Amino acid sequence: MLTPKLQMLERTLKRLLRRGAAGPLERVLVKTHAADLAFIFTSFSHNERVQLIEHCADDEMRGDVLASAEHAISAEVLASLPRQRAAELMGEIEPDDVSDLLEHMEEKEAAELLALMQGEEREEVEELSRYESTTAGGIMSPRFFALDRDKTVREAIAALQAVDTELEMVFYVYVVNELEQLLGVLSLRQLVVNKPDTKLFDVMTSDVISVSTHVDQEEVAQLASRYGLLAVPVVDDTNKLLGIVTVDDVIDVLREEATEDILRMAGAGDEIGDQRKVLRSVLSRFPWLLATGIGGAASAALLSLYTAPLTNYLPLVFFIPLVLGLAGVTGIQSATIVVTIVAQGRGRSVLLATVARQTIVGTLLGLVLGSMVGSFAGWWWDPLQATSLFASLAIGLGIAAAMSAAALLGCLLPWIFSRLRIDPALAAGPFAAMAVDVVGLALYLVIGANLT
Amino acid sequence: MLTPKLQMLERTLKRLLRRGAAGPLERVLVKTHAADLAFIFTSFSHNERVQLIEHCADDEMRGDVLASAEHAISAEVLASLPRQRAAELMGEIEPDDVSDLLEHMEEKEAAELLALMQGEEREEVEELSRYESTTAGGIMSPRFFALDRDKTVREAIAALQAVDTELEMVFYVYVVNELEQLLGVLSLRQLVVNKPDTKLFDVMTSDVISVSTHVDQEEVAQLASRYGLLAVPVVDDTNKLLGIVTVDDVIDVLREEATEDILRMAGAGDEIGDQRKVLRSVLSRFPWLLATGIGGAASAALLSLYTAPLTNYLPLVFFIPLVLGLAGVTGIQSATIVVTIVAQGRGRSVLLATVARQTIVGTLLGLVLGSMVGSFAGWWWDPLQATSLFASLAIGLGIAAAMSAAALLGCLLPWIFSRLRIDPALAAGPFAAMAVDVVGLALYLVIGANLT
Repeated sequence: MLTPKLQMLERTLKRLLRRGAAGPLERVLVKTHAADLAFIFTSFSHNERVQLIEHCADDEMRGDVLASAEHAISAEVLASLPRQRAAELMGEIEPDDVSDLLEHMEEKEAAELLALMQGEEREEVEELSRYESTTAGGIMSPRFFALDRDKTVREAIAALQAVDTELEMVFYVYVVNELEQLLGVLSLRQLVVNKPDTKLFDVMTSDVISVSTHVDQEEVAQLASRYGLLAVPVVDDTNKLLGIVTVDDVIDVLREEATEDILRMAGAGDEIGDQRKVLRSVLSRFPWLLATGIGGAASAALLSLYTAPLTNYLPLVFFIPLVLGLAGVTGIQSATIVVTIVAQGRGRSVLLATVARQTIVGTLLGLVLGSMVGSFAGWWWDPLQATSLFASLAIGLGIAAAMSAAALLGCLLPWIFSRLRIDPALAAGPFAAMAVDVVGLALYLVIGANLT
Repeated sequence: MLTPKLQMLERTLKRLLRRGAAGPLERVLVKTHAADLAFIFTSFSHNERVQLIEHCADDEMRGDVLASAEHAISAEVLASLPRQRAAELMGEIEPDDVSDLLEHMEEKEAAELLALMQGEEREEVEELSRYESTTAGGIMSPRFFALDRDKTVREAIAALQAVDTELEMVFYVYVVNELEQLLGVLSLRQLVVNKPDTKLFDVMTSDVISVSTHVDQEEVAQLASRYGLLAVPVVDDTNKLLGIVTVDDVIDVLREEATEDILRMAGAGDEIGDQRKVLRSVLSRFPWLLATGIGGAASAALLSLYTAPLTNYLPLVFFIPLVLGLAGVTGIQSATIVVTIVAQGRGRSVLLATVARQTIVGTLLGLVLGSMVGSFAGWWWDPLQATSLFASLAIGLGIAAAMSAAALLGCLLPWIFSRLRIDPALAAGPFAAMAVDVVGLALYLVIGANLT
């Protein structure tokens, strides 16, 4: 839910847009933080968004809003402006964001816009678009603060004072040699507390953590978070410093990956990014549902083999949803825990211990719930007859077997996926549910048919 | 999976521990980054962990490892050391981490340890433990850098140089008045680029974002991430500055909350934190499985009402797992998307649009899959008879109805939960699955029984 402040802002802006009150709109926007407007940007229609951008206080704010809002939406706004104007606004945006915005446009539009951008900015963007968008190279900013090893602390402070305000995120001073190779790093605080005549080379930390351009963004984020870094330097194969990934990008990556994992586990793809296209959602989900459907068809075939025991003892049929439900929940619980552990980058011994533990927990829970449901089934259907004992046993044991198999399968599937270098989150959702359903049902039927 | 470097470190340490080779162990540990050791700390047994801590290079590293490793595990290590020694080590750890570590111990142990800590550190910890551990007050550090409004830039730099190294995370200089009330903020960069004689009051940014002690940690993290802040100041009701939440804590909170959401959605509680207690897992999952079981019992009761149509036309039975599977996947997909949107703090209009869109997508997919399965069922069971048309229609329409109801229910449940101020992630897992199963099955049976 939006905070009350943002709710109020949204309502006020909507009202002013409806009334077409340009003056009051501008007065509200001039007092609005770009990040706030960006955050509620999705709540408006495309036309409203264009108007909001128009009425922003200045181009700096326009750039900030477009850079911070969802890029799919910002790209639409930019594409609907006159080309020259859009190129101007893109000049206000950091090159890594520009590069990502261009990827959300039609190729022709993107090329035209890029051609209209100013020389240096265009080169920066072109340089970045050489890298995959989810690697260190793709998310790095080429605007960092690096100085030669022979400079003094005094010279560094002077250089910092002369630097333009676009370098807002200066956390560290990187120290390089004449080939621009990364030698070390100083924090701003080290700069402040050291004597002015000291050479940077003598006070820098030379044990500097850096990544290559092709390292996955998730790994960069994990490094930054593990070592508490505000920026991770990105180097090429010769250790030449090319850019930095700053902590705000790290936070974005962590949020993105967490959301992606959750959605993938539900087999819902990357739907959040694009709220508009129903057909795309239908198509992206169809394969998962088809897999589920195939599992369901396998279950149907399985059931058709057990027509006689099922019709002879109907409670076996009645408890099918219960068996599937319990096995499903157990399987997903195991799978989720394994996915989380894999995502945290834990080692093999932790994983093995987890699989063992999950299977034990699943089996214990299976025995408890199996005996509960088994007794209930016997009492409910057939309270007086002697056959009810076997029937209860059949249902109870069937449930216990289905649940322990589900716990084990739920652990193994994401693990196998991660070994095959497929995202384990993909295994933990509909795929695990389907496998667990079929296996659980088979065990339940075999045990049920033989005991009743 | 662990990176190769960490895998190697783990193997080397295990081997040296087995051999009891104290010398080589110390030589490896002196070259190891505390964050790396903390990260693989779970892979060792309790006794190995105690030995590793003993052989660390110095108390600073010991403190860093214990503060960065999982607190449940570190608390166990600390609790098994002699009290005086444990109190010494805790002196090396930031007060917010100490406060959290103490919460993981028995009350008596924690009180004894706290009593042994040094005066000032003990007071800091006691101050922090007054706040809920998941609020701004509970995660803030009381060590920040604040100066009076009348100080000059020169004086600020001198003060920064005099400050001890424990204030490692200095990102901003906070400006306060004589009552320690927060007036404004300066970045270190502003300090470096302004003239030495300027008063802080004249160059500070007075539009400073701060939070009260009782604000939820997730909200603090969202603020920091939205406005790109490296630290969020925490104030009391009179605007007195009490502490700061730094970006590394923000990252921890975001990771924690993401993991928590994923586990909650699977109804697996907070299991990652504690890998050891099987019984606790069994107990924490039991309620979810019981809820699933009750849903299953409701389904059984429902099925028992339709004994005649089910036995007359067995394919209705055969396709029950398929109906439940498809409805389940559809419901979870809707629920996950709504949970993600609520977690992002999106507004009402975005939510409404999402619910509408999910229901449309679910219905369309239901029609497609319903007609596929319906045709397949007719052809499979009864390829020549005329009745198969109605049967196909029954199964197909039943599936379509179950899926569109599942899509709608999956959206509404987390939304209702969030309105009732219950974590919507709790609704999206087993609870949604159960509701979707029962409703989907009911629709399928009503349609199936009336058409066959």
